[in-house]
Amino acid sequence: MKNHTSIKHCKQCGEKVSYKIPSDGDTKLRAICNVCQSIHYENPLNVVGTLPIWRDQVLLCRRNIEPRFGMWTLPAGFMELGETLSQGAARETVEEAGAQFEMQELFSIMNVVRVGQVHFFFRARLTSDAFDPGHETMEARLFSEQDIPWDEIAFRTVKQTLQCYFADMKSKNFALHQVDIE
Amino acid sequence: MKNHTSIKHCKQCGEKVSYKIPSDGDTKLRAICNVCQSIHYENPLNVVGTLPIWRDQVLLCRRNIEPRFGMWTLPAGFMELGETLSQGAARETVEEAGAQFEMQELFSIMNVVRVGQVHFFFRARLTSDAFDPGHETMEARLFSEQDIPWDEIAFRTVKQTLQCYFADMKSKNFALHQVDIE
Repeated sequence: MKNHTSIKHCKQCGEKVSYKIPSDGDTKLRAICNVCQSIHYENPLNVVGTLPIWRDQVLLCRRNIEPRFGMWTLPAGFMELGETLSQGAARETVEEAGAQFEMQELFSIMNVVRVGQVHFFFRARLTSDAFDPGHETMEARLFSEQDIPWDEIAFRTVKQTLQCYFADMKSKNFALHQVDIE
Repeated sequence: MKNHTSIKHCKQCGEKVSYKIPSDGDTKLRAICNVCQSIHYENPLNVVGTLPIWRDQVLLCRRNIEPRFGMWTLPAGFMELGETLSQGAARETVEEAGAQFEMQELFSIMNVVRVGQVHFFFRARLTSDAFDPGHETMEARLFSEQDIPWDEIAFRTVKQTLQCYFADMKSKNFALHQVDIE
């Protein structure tokens, strides 16, 4: 299990921290400042994105950044302060694909405990097949199911979301998928 | 909009940070160390809890801690590293109520943008009406709909989750509720 950022110094006063169990009834090790006693918590992060659909095709973005440079992903990124899950997913879709779309239902929630993340993908209905990807994307392209580059998908949550989508397409029944990624 | 923790010092080296837009294509102000250039991101936090049901009654916990000391809540707290949404909700239910239960479906997702949080409540079927609340709870008690202390509910997400539950009970149709709290 990853600590997002192993904390060495207090973000309030800059002095060194020690990992200890606070005396307030907590049961977990926390970074506590040796001087001002501030407690610094580390918690899971949300990753938000979309599954953008044009007719029978899905939009994928080829990554122009690490990690997984050159591999294909759905548009997604870390949720920011000041937005809802859905607003964050929409923002990432604009930033990474420059796509035009209507947001639809929440489609998948995936716990990725090992890296301390929860991934959320919303379906989105593309209203144009023209894209204008930002600097994080080298190419944005539509794929039919038979053309999906399954061996070049950047993240397991993206692969599993795509698999769920094509299975739901066949059954014509779109459910919310909740998955724990090992 | 709240910054969870206004960062003053670098958690890597302890030197002072300045809020600037990084030169990596980012568009938002981030706390960047003046010396080692580490970027410190601040993101929304997940709060996870349950809606524990015993026959036609709901379990509420009276808070023994701030904020909202003395008010009633569903068992819930911040999601921790090393757990899924559902595991976190179960942990909080044990810690705050000492309840015995079976976890059920995800029931509500509530964006609370103003404080940078997303709240998740799962339904839980109580398998006993005996409770053993921890230090954060002064009393754990079952309430029928007509007895819910609506004016003493600690949080709006709890109040709204309870309202959704009793409405769904009447329609006998349990849906996933997605709400943005202003």
